[in-house]
Amino acid sequence: MREVLVIGIGAGDPDQLTLEAVKALGRLDVAFLVDKGDEKRDLTDLRREMLREYAPRARVASVKDPERDRAATRYATAVDDWRRERAANYRDLIRDELTEHQTGGFLVWGDPALFDSTIAILDDIDGITFTYAVIPGISSVSALAARHRIGLNRVGRAVQITTGRRLATEGMPSDVDDLVVMLDARNAYRAVEDDVDIYWGAYLGTQDEILRAGKLHETRDEIDEVRAAARARKGWIMDTYLLRRRDR
Amino acid sequence: MREVLVIGIGAGDPDQLTLEAVKALGRLDVAFLVDKGDEKRDLTDLRREMLREYAPRARVASVKDPERDRAATRYATAVDDWRRERAANYRDLIRDELTEHQTGGFLVWGDPALFDSTIAILDDIDGITFTYAVIPGISSVSALAARHRIGLNRVGRAVQITTGRRLATEGMPSDVDDLVVMLDARNAYRAVEDDVDIYWGAYLGTQDEILRAGKLHETRDEIDEVRAAARARKGWIMDTYLLRRRDR
Ligand SMILES: C[S@@+](CC[C@H](N)C(=O)[O-])C[C@H]1O[C@@H](n2cnc3c(N)ncnc32)[C@H](O)[C@@H]1O
Ligand SMILES: C[S@@+](CC[C@H](N)C(=O)[O-])C[C@H]1O[C@@H](n2cnc3c(N)ncnc32)[C@H](O)[C@@H]1O
Repeated sequence: MREVLVIGIGAGDPDQLTLEAVKALGRLDVAFLVDKGDEKRDLTDLRREMLREYAPRARVASVKDPERDRAATRYATAVDDWRRERAANYRDLIRDELTEHQTGGFLVWGDPALFDSTIAILDDIDGITFTYAVIPGISSVSALAARHRIGLNRVGRAVQITTGRRLATEGMPSDVDDLVVMLDARNAYRAVEDDVDIYWGAYLGTQDEILRAGKLHETRDEIDEVRAAARARKGWIMDTYLLRRRDR
Repeated sequence: MREVLVIGIGAGDPDQLTLEAVKALGRLDVAFLVDKGDEKRDLTDLRREMLREYAPRARVASVKDPERDRAATRYATAVDDWRRERAANYRDLIRDELTEHQTGGFLVWGDPALFDSTIAILDDIDGITFTYAVIPGISSVSALAARHRIGLNRVGRAVQITTGRRLATEGMPSDVDDLVVMLDARNAYRAVEDDVDIYWGAYLGTQDEILRAGKLHETRDEIDEVRAAARARKGWIMDTYLLRRRDR
C-alpha cells in the first residue's frame, strides 16, 4: 500500500525538526513540494535544504495548488469545486508518483494541526487507497512563546488561537485573557481597545526574526512601522502575536 | 554568567525531541529534575533516559517543588508564600549547583508554554543574575491532533485551549467550535450538552497510548470506562481531548 507522511517541519528554524520528522524524511521515496504560486521563495528554499540534508535519496515532485477564486468564495459551489480540484490534484500526485510500496511526504510548515489544509485535502481524496500518518511540528505559536519566554495562558486560564480577520470583526473575546492571532494581513491589533499587552514576532526562527513586546497602545505604532519596513525589504511578512489582558 | 535552559521535551515520545532540544541537552553541565512528590514515576524515567542518551556528561540535581497548600489556595497570601518559596528553591538550586560559567537545564514536559510553571518561577527569582532561554517542544495538544490526523481548528475559525475545571464550570464557550481540554481530573466532558464530536487521547506518544473518537454522546460512556480501567491499571492517567461542534 502507498504510504503518505504529513511532516510538520517547524516554523522557520531547521533545528525545530523533531527526531521523528528527521526519521520520516529519511524514509521518503518522494517529497511533494506544494507550489502555491504566491509561496515565498525563502520558505521553499528552507524545505529544499531540509531535503538535501535529511532526505538525500528522495525524489522531489511538485504539486500545483489551485488558487481559490477569491471573488467566488461566498458561493458554496465554487468552494466545493475548488476542494474537489485540489483533492484530485493530490490524488493524481500520489497515484502517479508513488509505486505500490513507496512512501511520499508533504513537508508542512509549523504544526500540520494549525491553519494548514494538507490533512483536510487528504481526507477529501477518493478513488485510491493509501495509508497516512501525521508527524506533529513546532508551530509558530510555540516559537513565539519561547522567544518571548512566556506561557501562552495564565494559571488555570484558557488561551484562544484565532485569525486576524476574526479579531478585526469580533474584537477580543470576553471569555479569554490570552489571544494568539495568526494570518493577520491587515494589522487587526490596531483596532483593539482593551487594555492588553502584545507579544509580537515576525519571521520567527529565521535570521530575520523580529520581536517586540509592550502595552499594545504604546507599542502598536512601532509595530506598524517595523512591519511595513520589513515587508518592504523582504517583499512579504509572516508574523504572529499574543494579546494578553492586563486588567485581570 | 550562569545560563539556564528551559527545554521542551515533547509529551511522551522521546523522538518528539527537536534537534534544538538535543543540542541543548548536550550542552548541559547540570540537569535539574523537579520532584513534585506526586510526579509519575514513568515521566521521571523518560527524562532520565533522555539524559542518559543526550546529556551523558550532565550531573543531575533534584529540586523539591513545594506542594501548594490546596486548602489555602483561596487566600492570596498563601499563594504568594508558595510562589516565593518556589522561586527561592529554584534560586538556591541555580546558585549552588552552577558555577559562574555553567549551563543548567529544566526538562519540561510537552511545550513549556502550555500549563507549565517553570517560566513563571524563573521570572519570580530575585537576588541572583543568570540568562535564560526557552526551547519550544511538541505539546500534548499537537500530539493529540497528529494521532487523530485532524486539524485543531476549522478553516478561518478559532480554537481554544482550556482546563477541565473551566469546562465544568463554564461549559462549551459559544464563540469557538473547537475546544481542547487539558488537566481534566473529573471527566468534565460528561456534562457537555452541545452536539460535539470528541477526539480523546491518553498517554499520547507512549506505549500505553489510547485513542477514542466519535460523537460525544455516543462515546463518553466508553471513554469513562477506558479511563477508569487505565487509571486503575497504571495508578495515574494523563489525557487530553478536543471537543468539536457538529452543528455548524
Ligand atoms: C497558513 S498559517 C500556517 C501555520 C503553521 N501551520 C504553524 O503551525 O505555525 C500561516 C501563519 O502562521 C504564522 N507563522 C508561520 N510561521 C511563522 C513565523 N516563522 N513567524 C511568525 N509567524 C509565523 C503567521 O501568522 C502566518 O500568517
Ligand atoms: C501540567 S499540563 C502540562 C502540559 C504540557 N506542558 C504540554 O505541552 O502538553 C498536564 C496536562 O497535559 C496533558 N498531557 C500531557 N502529556 C500528555 C500525554 N502524553 N497524553 C495525553 N495528555 C497529556 C494532560 O491533559 C495533562 O493533564
